Amino acid sequence: MSIEVDFGDDELVPAVAQDADTGEVLMLAYASPEALERTRETGHAHYYSRSREELWEKGATSGHRQHVREVRVDCDADALLYLVDQDGGACHTGHRSCFYRTVDGDERGERVFDPDEVYGDA
Amino acid sequence: MSIEVDFGDDELVPAVAQDADTGEVLMLAYASPEALERTRETGHAHYYSRSREELWEKGATSGHRQHVREVRVDCDADALLYLVDQDGGACHTGHRSCFYRTVDGDERGERVFDPDEVYGDA
Repeated sequence: MSIEVDFGDDELVPAVAQDADTGEVLMLAYASPEALERTRETGHAHYYSRSREELWEKGATSGHRQHVREVRVDCDADALLYLVDQDGGACHTGHRSCFYRTVDGDERGERVFDPDEVYGDA
Repeated sequence: MSIEVDFGDDELVPAVAQDADTGEVLMLAYASPEALERTRETGHAHYYSRSREELWEKGATSGHRQHVREVRVDCDADALLYLVDQDGGACHTGHRSCFYRTVDGDERGERVFDPDEVYGDA
């Protein structure tokens, strides 16, 4: 039986992407009902961009797609966890994970691609 | 150099707690500036409860505290990752992780305590 996700007033829930093999937390973005539906239909992670106000397939520009093995929902059904196989890196800075810094500013994560090459330097 | 966290208009950012040893994603809640400050000062995970509208120390009632080894911030500085040692279980349902179900309703996570014993059954 499918869990009814509580998208709330703004019709968005936070969605965490985690590497299904290594357990690394890759990124946090937001999912709309349509983003969740498209993710389940296609097996590729979709999100909703709050700044661009549009549905967004992760990797559509960069090629760094997330192949979703499983979608989990939390106890309150107002947050999602995507377990994924990540092509390339999740972060637009070129890092494997967006969480590549401590709050003290120390670098932690690995850089896996050159963003200028992937996105262009325009 | 400390990263300036972008708390946005609602003065809250999503904060993901991850088991520092196993990599298991335990929960997602929200942090206010004060919650982050208290987390860093005490080494125990603090959040802001949107429903109760108050600062909240994880485990203050249940004893299931989160000892924070490191706080990470994402590329946009608008999401946090707490790397923690979790006492007991993170979820009020008794599961180790709040993400104990798939969106299809299949159980995944392990139950580690009886919530009636910890919280009372009132």
